[in-house]
Amino acid sequence: MDILDLIESRASYRGAYAETPVPREHLDAILRAGCAAPSGCNKQTTSFIAVDEPALLDELKAIVMPRIGDTAPAWILVLTRPIVAYRDRVFNVQDYSAAIENMLLEIKALGYESCWYEGHVTDDDDLGGQLARRLGVPEEYRLVCVLPVGVPAEPVKRVRKLPVEERVWYNGFGK
Amino acid sequence: MDILDLIESRASYRGAYAETPVPREHLDAILRAGCAAPSGCNKQTTSFIAVDEPALLDELKAIVMPRIGDTAPAWILVLTRPIVAYRDRVFNVQDYSAAIENMLLEIKALGYESCWYEGHVTDDDDLGGQLARRLGVPEEYRLVCVLPVGVPAEPVKRVRKLPVEERVWYNGFGK
Repeated sequence: MDILDLIESRASYRGAYAETPVPREHLDAILRAGCAAPSGCNKQTTSFIAVDEPALLDELKAIVMPRIGDTAPAWILVLTRPIVAYRDRVFNVQDYSAAIENMLLEIKALGYESCWYEGHVTDDDDLGGQLARRLGVPEEYRLVCVLPVGVPAEPVKRVRKLPVEERVWYNGFGK
Repeated sequence: MDILDLIESRASYRGAYAETPVPREHLDAILRAGCAAPSGCNKQTTSFIAVDEPALLDELKAIVMPRIGDTAPAWILVLTRPIVAYRDRVFNVQDYSAAIENMLLEIKALGYESCWYEGHVTDDDDLGGQLARRLGVPEEYRLVCVLPVGVPAEPVKRVRKLPVEERVWYNGFGK
């Protein structure tokens, strides 16, 4: 598949998932895509926990209310550390965002769907912290994102985007 | 090309570029990849200016010291606005980072190289602001990244990454 077609066909999927499991070999490939993302000064501030053990996954799902990715057979949890790149500059948000986008593309390429759930787990009620504690994550890491992974059981809808001419110009703003 | 191969072959290229121009059709494809990235609550906070007009590009290159992407025949400048996604939550760093990663992958897929130059233009000397003013960018946008685009004239080196087992686990931290 052409990479641009893949990039443009990716959408945030919030529907139900089929029961079809995601084999480890596919999860490994998705996680490799995450690890291969660039990071500021190569600090590799992003780490990952994949969860495919059904009882554990059910426990994690019960922590997040309102529920997300509730029928997905696997979740990938994204962890970040604010490691200094140089002087006082920290790029860990950029780092994990590039890693998440890589994983979303590899998820799509393998025939699965997902959705970037971040705001819901990093809000004041600290659901990300609760998930992290259940998984034994040390304090210096912050759990910032849940990516459900699975075969979609419902049609995938794409959101409408602004016309390109409102966001893209050549050789000057608005041109 | 397999998407995972593409993702894993991408590297930050800081060498010289060949004079070969980048056709508009390729720049358009790269910018489409940027626009197709997800954004928090679909706020589409990222915009783009591609520069391929030689005299203008030389002016921009002269602003950034020490010089970056100095021999590249085109630059893509990434603009962001901190638009509120909901309540007090803003995801514009995540949004532009996903867009940059998409563009880096499409750049690579088309046979070009690039490098994510962010810290250098968003530092205290505000080189990004100087570039933005030269391009007529309104105050509400911030110019956060330069992506040179071109055919590499030197070998591409990949950085060493940590072993996967230091960053990736299954069903619990460190497992």
